[in-house]
Amino acid sequence: MSITMTTISKKTENTVWHNQHINKNQRAELKQQKPALLWYTGLSGSGKSTVANAVDALLYKLSCHSYLLDGDNVRHGLNGDLGFSDEARIENIRRISEVAKLFLDAGLIVSTAFISPFASDRALAKAKLEAGEFIEVFIDTPISVCEQRDPKGLYKKARAGEIKDFTGIDSTYDVPTSPQIHVKTAEQSIEQCAEQIVGYLIEHAFIRV
Amino acid sequence: MSITMTTISKKTENTVWHNQHINKNQRAELKQQKPALLWYTGLSGSGKSTVANAVDALLYKLSCHSYLLDGDNVRHGLNGDLGFSDEARIENIRRISEVAKLFLDAGLIVSTAFISPFASDRALAKAKLEAGEFIEVFIDTPISVCEQRDPKGLYKKARAGEIKDFTGIDSTYDVPTSPQIHVKTAEQSIEQCAEQIVGYLIEHAFIRV
Repeated sequence: MSITMTTISKKTENTVWHNQHINKNQRAELKQQKPALLWYTGLSGSGKSTVANAVDALLYKLSCHSYLLDGDNVRHGLNGDLGFSDEARIENIRRISEVAKLFLDAGLIVSTAFISPFASDRALAKAKLEAGEFIEVFIDTPISVCEQRDPKGLYKKARAGEIKDFTGIDSTYDVPTSPQIHVKTAEQSIEQCAEQIVGYLIEHAFIRV
Repeated sequence: MSITMTTISKKTENTVWHNQHINKNQRAELKQQKPALLWYTGLSGSGKSTVANAVDALLYKLSCHSYLLDGDNVRHGLNGDLGFSDEARIENIRRISEVAKLFLDAGLIVSTAFISPFASDRALAKAKLEAGEFIEVFIDTPISVCEQRDPKGLYKKARAGEIKDFTGIDSTYDVPTSPQIHVKTAEQSIEQCAEQIVGYLIEHAFIRV
């Protein structure tokens, strides 16, 4: 223990101990980046998750500190108690935006990949953050293309009436009116989409390469 | 844009684009540390928050990537909808442990500083994680000392009957039976507590100094 303690003490000379609070700027500085939230929105099958994962992988290659919140890690854990009623969907997005805010506070670049069909919910998420931190990424894919892809067979079920309130079929999708980033997966490759998004982060000085 | 894209491409040669998922190990490797959850538990006024902040500041000095979840950033945000009934307290701890798990997945060393009086809740939090990741830190301070400190005047109110179900007065605190770390703020300085905790992380190879 004594060697360990000496090592620590050497590295932390002049530390003021009491009432220390490491803040967001300090955490971001350690990571040499500016925190941001990439809020992906788009229809089921539009490619949100694929693009978000590609961006995340690209950020990792660039040694940026990022994290991705999506159905895989949120729906069965934190939001495992929520169903699919309107109320539950709103609470789902509320919790996601609160968790995203914590990740920003930790200095990370966070992505959220959920349909998030209602403009009002996206506005609420944006309102929780500091100016410029919320980056709406509209994954703009025609519903005909999404339906053709239908990776989870959900459109088929929705058309057969087995799923109710399916976004784009019998539930509204509010098309983003002024997204910071607009990609079209039916016309661009995943690589192009990812580079466009990471390009935005570079141009706006969120990350350095 | 073209220069930017060239720069990215140079840094990311041989990237495989599809079905990429950056995993926990990769995120931790970028940070040169092993994810861990420091779960602080102790009475109101025991010093959880002060010690947790001191540890967080020390980790920051050592260039470790950490984050602290406490009342300040969780109670008014994510858990702002919860009251103080038994059910609400359990849901409070459930959400905190799920969020902590996400932070671990992001490769961070996370601290949670909440009274968390029930052993069953702490066991649930531990059960969500991988073996060895959950580090129970018992902030062991006699209730007489906590009551004398009474930084928020809560003990006074509890004794006057203005607050019901106050931990240690008229609500149970399950003393940890085998915490990984046991500190006594009435006998140790904050510096000593923090160094003991960071020493544990070094000895168990969660961080390198």
